[in-house]
Formats: sequence, C-alpha cells, structure tokens
Amino acid sequence: MEVRARAPGKIILSGEHAVVHGSTAVAASIDLHTYVSLTFPTNSDNDDKLWLHLDDMALHFSWPVGRIKEALSEKGSHAPSSPKSCSAETINILAALVEEQNVIPEANITIGAGVTAFLWLYTCIHGYKPAMVVVASELPLGSGLGSSAAFSVSLAAALLALSDSANLDSTQQGWLSFGEKELELVNKWAFEGEKIIHGKPSGIDNTVSTYGNMIKFNSGELTRLKSNTPIKMLITNTNVGRNTKALVAGVSERTVRHPTAMEAVFKAVDSISNEVATIIQSPAHDDIAATEKEDKLEELMEMNQGLLQCMGVSHASIETVLRTTLKYKLASKLTGAGGGGCVLTLLPTQLFQIRKS
Amino acid sequence: MEVRARAPGKIILSGEHAVVHGSTAVAASIDLHTYVSLTFPTNSDNDDKLWLHLDDMALHFSWPVGRIKEALSEKGSHAPSSPKSCSAETINILAALVEEQNVIPEANITIGAGVTAFLWLYTCIHGYKPAMVVVASELPLGSGLGSSAAFSVSLAAALLALSDSANLDSTQQGWLSFGEKELELVNKWAFEGEKIIHGKPSGIDNTVSTYGNMIKFNSGELTRLKSNTPIKMLITNTNVGRNTKALVAGVSERTVRHPTAMEAVFKAVDSISNEVATIIQSPAHDDIAATEKEDKLEELMEMNQGLLQCMGVSHASIETVLRTTLKYKLASKLTGAGGGGCVLTLLPTQLFQIRKS
Repeated sequence: MEVRARAPGKIILSGEHAVVHGSTAVAASIDLHTYVSLTFPTNSDNDDKLWLHLDDMALHFSWPVGRIKEALSEKGSHAPSSPKSCSAETINILAALVEEQNVIPEANITIGAGVTAFLWLYTCIHGYKPAMVVVASELPLGSGLGSSAAFSVSLAAALLALSDSANLDSTQQGWLSFGEKELELVNKWAFEGEKIIHGKPSGIDNTVSTYGNMIKFNSGELTRLKSNTPIKMLITNTNVGRNTKALVAGVSERTVRHPTAMEAVFKAVDSISNEVATIIQSPAHDDIAATEKEDKLEELMEMNQGLLQCMGVSHASIETVLRTTLKYKLASKLTGAGGGGCVLTLLPTQLFQIRKS
Repeated sequence: MEVRARAPGKIILSGEHAVVHGSTAVAASIDLHTYVSLTFPTNSDNDDKLWLHLDDMALHFSWPVGRIKEALSEKGSHAPSSPKSCSAETINILAALVEEQNVIPEANITIGAGVTAFLWLYTCIHGYKPAMVVVASELPLGSGLGSSAAFSVSLAAALLALSDSANLDSTQQGWLSFGEKELELVNKWAFEGEKIIHGKPSGIDNTVSTYGNMIKFNSGELTRLKSNTPIKMLITNTNVGRNTKALVAGVSERTVRHPTAMEAVFKAVDSISNEVATIIQSPAHDDIAATEKEDKLEELMEMNQGLLQCMGVSHASIETVLRTTLKYKLASKLTGAGGGGCVLTLLPTQLFQIRKS
C-alpha cells in the first residue's frame, strides 16, 4: 500500500525580521514542493525495517523497527491524533539512532535534525511498523523557502493519510482530500517536526505549507488570507549561505543600540504588511485593477527592502539582484533572513501580456 | 580698495527629505569654498560700471550703474543693516537686467537666479556704486553641496565688509573678523539671496555656510552644534544630475499613499538625526572614544541610507558608490536630495593611522 503527499514551500512577502519584534508579516505558498511517498510492505516482503530515502541528497537510512523500539523503550508515544512535543531527552535518543547509521556527511546538523523529526513523527503516528519513506524536493535547503516545513508537512500528511486518525474522502482518480480537521492535525504534527528541526519556529512556514495560499502573522496569531488575483513572483536564489540566527541577533542588537529609531522602523514594516494583506484580499475586477495592485505591491516591496537595509540584513549578492531587476523596472526585495538567500521580484501581468502580443 | 571673502559648502549628515516632514536634520560645513572679491574703483579709474565675473563659468557681466538705477527706479532699497526680501516684481526687473546682458547660455535658470540675487544684495548694500565683483568656487553647481548658499554668504560677507553696517575688527595680517552681530547680518542677507535662487529655502545651507561647523535643524529652528572631534568624510560626486523638486514631491506623494508607514520612517530618521547630533557633541577623550563615535556614526549612516531608499530617493549611481565603499568596509549614504548628486563616506581615523604606520 502506497500513499504520496506533497507540500509547498513559502516566501515571506513582507515583514521578515520585524515579525520577531511584534510587526505583522505576510507569507505565501509557492509552486515548489516537497514530495513524500510512504509504502507499507506486504506480508510477503518479509521486511522488518523502516527505510528513509532522501533522494535529492542520495542519503539512505534503514532501521530494524525492533532497534527503534528498543532505543525508545518507554519514551515512544503512539498517538496519531494527539500531536505531542518531543522532549529533549527523546530528541537525543532519536539523534543517536540517526547518527549510528553513519550516513550524513560531516555533521550536517539540519539534515540530522530533519531525520530526527522524521523518526518522531513516524513512531508517534505508526509506532514500530516497517515501512519505506521516500522524500524528494524541488526546494533548495536553507535558502529561506521553507524546505524544512514542506518536509514536515508532506511527511505528516503522508503518515496521517495511512493512519486511522485521518478520515479522508477518496475523490476521483485516486486523490485523497484532507478536510479542515485533518489539515489542522497535519499542521500540528508538522509544527512538532519544525520544533525538532528549528528549536523555536514561528509556525508561519508549516501553516503556509499546510493550507497553501497566504497567511498574515502577528504576535503568534495566524490569519489565513484569500488572494483574489494570482501574483507572479520571480525567486532568485543568490546561493549565498547565511547564518539566520546571527542575522536575527544582529537586528536585536541594533534595536538595543537605537531603540526609538528601530521601533519606528518596525512600525513602518507592520503598516506595510497590513497594506500588503489588504491589497492581496481586495477584489480585482479587471486588468486595470490588477495593474494597480501590482504597482502598489511594487512600491511596498521597495519600501520594505529599504527598511531591511536599515536593519542591516541585506548583502552584496542581494543588491546585485536588486540592481539587475531595476534595470528592467522590476521591484525586488529579499525574502527570509537576508544576508544572502533568496530575492523576490514581482513580475507584473502586463509584462506577460506585452510579450504575448 | 579690495576685500575678499570666502564661505564653505555643506553636506547633510542626516535627515534630508524627512526634514520637510518635520524630522530633525544635521548639516555640516565642508572644506570647499566659494570666494568673492569686491573692488571699488579709484576715482582715477573713471569706471561707472558694476562688473560681475563668474570665473569658473567664464561668464562676465557689466552694467552701467545708471542703467541699474533707471531700471529699479523707486524699487531700489539701499539699507545694508536691514535685510529685506526682494519682491516678485523687483525680481522680474533684475532678471531682465541679467537677461539683456545675453551672457548666460541656454536659459540656465539657476545661474540667472544667482546673478539676480547678486544684483539685489549689491544694490541693497551699496546702492549704485561702481564696483568689480569676482566669484570663484570649488563647489560643483547643483550637486547638493550648497554652492548657491556659499555664493550668497561669501557675497554678503564681502559686501558688508566694505559697508558702514559691519563693524569689523581688523586683526593681524589684514584679516577682518566678523562678530556675532555681523555674522547674523551676513546670514540674513544670504537667506534673502537664497530665496531669490530657490524660492523656499530651509535656511540650513546659508546658516551652515555662515557659521561653519554643524547645525541641527527642526521645524524651522536652527541649533548650532559644537563638534569635539573632526569627522573625515569622503564626498563622491556621482555627476548624475537630478530634479530636486521632483524628488521632494515624490516623497510627499508616497507619504499620501502610505501615511502610517512613512510617518514611522520620518520618526526613525528624526531619532537618527538626534543621535548623530549627540554623538558629534559628546566629548572625545582618546582614540578609542573617537573610534566608538565613528562606529556609531557608520551604523546610523547605514540606517539613514536604508530609510532614504524606503522613501524612493536613491539611484543606481548612488548604489554603485555604496557597493564600492562597502568592499572596503566603509559606510556611505547619499547626501542632499538623492536621485544622483553626492554620496558621503565616513573615513575612520583608524584608517589613516593604519596607513601611516
């Protein structure tokens, strides 16, 4: 029996960094996904292992389920319908299980944490049942596009789809449809996975990946937004790695040094995010309205980028993308932590219409 | 009899554009000057003309003083000790006197307005006396370095030095020293000149040029600052001309579209300007304190530049300078109206010490 699930990555349209200081942020799902396939062996397979194949990285793990059971002993928790946090002690046990496979090159902490999260979600939802899980992703790792959340969400979705906890409607052509209650469960489990991978995630990434479309986030409160017009964004990966924690800390230190100025900057970002959310949700009647929306979004992106530079999180590689797109009169801003990572460029509808004609 | 005067140009250290919306700005005089020489002919010269030589532009004007008297008729106002605004009607009369000389190429409005201001200041302070005035400047025109204010101030100083209104102390080596009262008179006359050239000047430029050092400006109120450590600034002229009025209007339009965000941005700039003023005035005990000051100023410059980008007044040419100086870990910001013009780069003291050693 096999089930496949996919979950999208995300971009931050507005409010990165400032969100940590109480400002509103807006995130959107993107058309790049992580795919998870889950297969239970038939009795004739005679396989008592839990396999995990991370195809993109050519990393392959397999644990005899008895080994996992033995390691977890009483720490295991088979309760698919009640998402539960993994204790620090259990994280250590699971991390040791990952490490003893000797598969991950040179202490790649993120991948190790991802596989640890996998073991937690798997054992919580399916106990010590043998299975084969294959993961493939279109999302680059650690570039701020929410690859870990897409991993956690697609994994939770696949695991829950074959559990008794999710009551899925089978539609035509073999698709399973997740209802509101099931999505909530997916999101909660994915958040538990994110916590293992990131420590203190905001919950933005897994929520966008679970529900798709866009969300507004402020001080822990998430609001799902319904966009009425598709927005075309070009995502440029600078391929410059960065230290998210150091960037976040840098903004906080600057805030300590210049509290009045920085509070005002965060207030400006908050207002920009709320404007972005309003524009996204406003009805678009025709092409003119769509163009107006895009013009407004472009201006707000330019303003947000200036404020991010004021926070000190831009980078030469980001500025290069900004200058290049500016030559074509296109507005861009960094997305995520900055200091490298990805840059968004709004591609106006008119651009495509002109090229088509 | 000849007198020579010089007056410095200026840079805006912090707060350009935002100052129009109520934020504090800080300006400093720079070591580039405009020089004015005023000579009264001896009786034997038999010259009844008022000569004006703008040496840098090789533009030469000469009016028979009778012609000026005739044109101004009752509009003239010989009152050196009471600075007076030039009415729109009188500006037109003086502008016609400038135009009939047929000297200025292709309606260069700024130069024309400068010569008009010269005629107003001259006739107010010296009536219809023949004289020769020679102007030379190290300041590039229209690049935001306050060339017109340096012209107005050096002109007012030279004119007042040979009038009865200024009571100047003659020091050694032929230098005349302007007292506080005389400087105030110079500043007021220069402001009248600026009004003819710019319409509605803020008064920042002529005040910095008159008193030197630095000033803080907020909502029409000027405070002179005493800097305790010299600050070394590299000024890079992008040589990109810009339309100051259009840039100022652009910021105002953006403020109408996004009032909450922009008010917060102006508040951030206000706070930055006040921090800059505090740092400038704080006593510097040693090299370490000087380095700390510079570090703080660099951070504030980076923040201010981000906020200017948020206002939409940066330019590709400015960004090129920013990127270039960033390679050497030097902080830069645009100064003045933006959209081209000049860029400031702080040159830390350490830089010179390292190069010396």
